Amino acid sequence: MSNTIYFTPGPAQLYPTVASHINNALLEDIASISHRSKKFHEIYRHTDSQLRELLGLPADFFISFTGSATEIWERALQSLVIEHSYHLVNGSFSKKFHSFAKELGKKPQKLEAEFGKGFFHDDVKIGNEIELVCATANETSAGVYTQESTLVEIKRKNTDALLIVDAVSAVPFSDFDWDSIDSILFSVQKAFGLPAGLGVWVYNQKCLQKADKVIKEGCNTGTYHSLLSLYENTLKYETPETPNVLGIYLLGKVAEDMNKIGKKNLRSQTLEKAKMMYQFLEKNDSYSAFVKEPLHQSPTVIVANTSKSSKDVIAKVIANCELPISLAIAFLILNN
Amino acid sequence: MSNTIYFTPGPAQLYPTVASHINNALLEDIASISHRSKKFHEIYRHTDSQLRELLGLPADFFISFTGSATEIWERALQSLVIEHSYHLVNGSFSKKFHSFAKELGKKPQKLEAEFGKGFFHDDVKIGNEIELVCATANETSAGVYTQESTLVEIKRKNTDALLIVDAVSAVPFSDFDWDSIDSILFSVQKAFGLPAGLGVWVYNQKCLQKADKVIKEGCNTGTYHSLLSLYENTLKYETPETPNVLGIYLLGKVAEDMNKIGKKNLRSQTLEKAKMMYQFLEKNDSYSAFVKEPLHQSPTVIVANTSKSSKDVIAKVIANCELPISLAIAFLILNN
Repeated sequence: MSNTIYFTPGPAQLYPTVASHINNALLEDIASISHRSKKFHEIYRHTDSQLRELLGLPADFFISFTGSATEIWERALQSLVIEHSYHLVNGSFSKKFHSFAKELGKKPQKLEAEFGKGFFHDDVKIGNEIELVCATANETSAGVYTQESTLVEIKRKNTDALLIVDAVSAVPFSDFDWDSIDSILFSVQKAFGLPAGLGVWVYNQKCLQKADKVIKEGCNTGTYHSLLSLYENTLKYETPETPNVLGIYLLGKVAEDMNKIGKKNLRSQTLEKAKMMYQFLEKNDSYSAFVKEPLHQSPTVIVANTSKSSKDVIAKVIANCELPISLAIAFLILNN
Repeated sequence: MSNTIYFTPGPAQLYPTVASHINNALLEDIASISHRSKKFHEIYRHTDSQLRELLGLPADFFISFTGSATEIWERALQSLVIEHSYHLVNGSFSKKFHSFAKELGKKPQKLEAEFGKGFFHDDVKIGNEIELVCATANETSAGVYTQESTLVEIKRKNTDALLIVDAVSAVPFSDFDWDSIDSILFSVQKAFGLPAGLGVWVYNQKCLQKADKVIKEGCNTGTYHSLLSLYENTLKYETPETPNVLGIYLLGKVAEDMNKIGKKNLRSQTLEKAKMMYQFLEKNDSYSAFVKEPLHQSPTVIVANTSKSSKDVIAKVIANCELPISLAIAFLILNN
C-alpha cells in the first residue's frame, strides 16, 4: 500500500489486514466458486456471524448483500413504503435518500437541519401516516452524528413506523439499540476499510411483514433485490444474483479481525482519537470544529473550518505533520 | 491460485494476469481513491477505451457499470420499455429476464425454445407493438448460441424495436454487428475471468431517446441506476454511487491484456478449442453434445450428455485427464 493520506471521509485507507486476506482469497480461489456452492454458503455464514458479533445483532435480524449502500436506499423505499416516508435531512447523503423517495413516486416528508447541525429527539414530530422513518447515524458530508439515544427516543414516540438508519461511516463504531431500530444499511469502503462495491442491509421481521403488505397493496418492489427476494436467498446463505463474492469474504475476515480487538476497544479508541482531534481544533486559532454542538460532533468523520486555504493546510500537514493526522479515521477539511 | 477444475460455466478460473493486477492495485491504493477523483476518471476512461477496442464498439455507444448483469435486466426493462418487451427464451437465464418484465408490471411476450435448442431468424415474428427485443447471445444454462447473423436478421425485420442482447459468457468472443444491436449487457466473472460483482451495460443513442420517452410517459425508471442517470455520470467518467472501483480497474487491465492477444486470435483460438471438444464428444460413445444443431452449439460453454453419472465422469477426468479439459473455456456436464 502507498503512504498517500486522503483527506476525505472515505473510501478509507484499506484496513491493514486486507492485502493478506486478498492474497489468501486468491490462493483459495474464492473468486471462482459458484454462489450456489457449499463453499459460498460457508463464506456467507462466516461473514453473517462475524457481523452479528460486531454489531451485537439479535437472532431475529437478517443480513443481506447488495451492490452499494446507495442501492439499499432505493430497495428500502420500494419494499418498505406504500406512500409515506419521513426523512431527517442534515447533509448531502440524507438529502439524496429523501430525493430517491420522490423519484420513486412516494410522498416523502422531511425535517431539514442547517448544514453542520444535527437533531434532538424533541425536534422530530412524525404524523401517524408515516410508514418509514429514515435517519442517518453519521452524516458523512457534514460530520454530524445522531446519538444512539436520540434514535431510541424517536422510535419510542413513533412505534408504528419502521425506523431505518443509514449507518455508513457509523458502523462498527455505533452501539445501536436493536429494540428501537428495524433496519440499518451501510457500505464497506468507509469504517471497514474495504474495497467498495458491496452494500449491507440489516433488517428485522417487522420489515418483512411490511414488505409483504407493500406487495399486497400492489406497489412495485423491483425484482431480484426486493426485500423478500433477498430474504429468501439469505435464509439459504445465498444471494439472488452472482454477488461480489470476494467482497463478502473480505468483510467477514475484517469483521473477524475487529472482533478480536473487541467492539468496546474499537469504540473507546475511536472516541479517544476523536477527542484529541476536537481538542486540537479548539486550541488552535487557525482551526475550529465545523459542528459546534458537542453531542452532534461525529467521532468518525471530523470536519474542520480552516482560516487558511484547505489546499495549503493539506500540503503543510503532509509535509510537517502539524496535525495529529494518524489519530482520526477521517478528517475532512472544508473551505476548499 | 489453486489447481481446482470447476465443471461449471462460471464464475470461471481467474484470468492468469488477475493476481498481478490485484497486487498492482493494492500498491497503487486503487481501493482508497474517491470515485469523483481524477485518478478514478483515468481508470474509467482506460477501461472504457480497452473495452471499445475489444468489442469493436463505435463512438456513439456508451459504457456504464452496475453491480451485476442481473441488475441490468431490471434497469433495461425499467428504462427502455413502457409496456411491451419480447423475449427469446431458451434456458434459465433468458427465462429469468422474461420473468423480470412480468414482475415489473410490463406485458412481455416470448418465443420459447425447447431446452438445448436455439433460434433461427425465421422463427421470430415480432408485432409492431414491441418496444424492446431481448435476446441472449449465449444461453449459459444450456450451451446454446445465437449466431450474430441471426441477431442481424431479427433487427432487420424489426427496425422500430430496440434490440438488447444478454452477452454474458459470449463477450469477448462474439463479433457483434453494432448497426443491428442497440445494447448489450454482461458480467465479468465468466469469459473475462474476473472476480464477480460488476455488470457492464453498453447502449446507443436510440436507447437514450427511448429512456427519455419512457420517463415522459410517467413510467418509473428507478433512481440512481436509471439509464439516464448512469449516462449523465458516464459522460464525466463517473458513476452515480461509489462503485466497485477495483472491479472496473481490473476489467480495464484484463481487456488490455486481451487486446494484446487480439480479438481475432481470441476468437480463432476459442473456435479451435471448441471444435476439438465437440469432436471428442462425437467420437466417444460415452458422451454426446447436448446441443445437436451445429449452428447453435456454443463455442464458449460446451454442454455434454454423459452415459455414466456426471459425478463419476468428473472424478475420472480430474484423476486421468480423459477429456482435453484445458481446451475449452467451460464444460458443463449434464445428467447430474
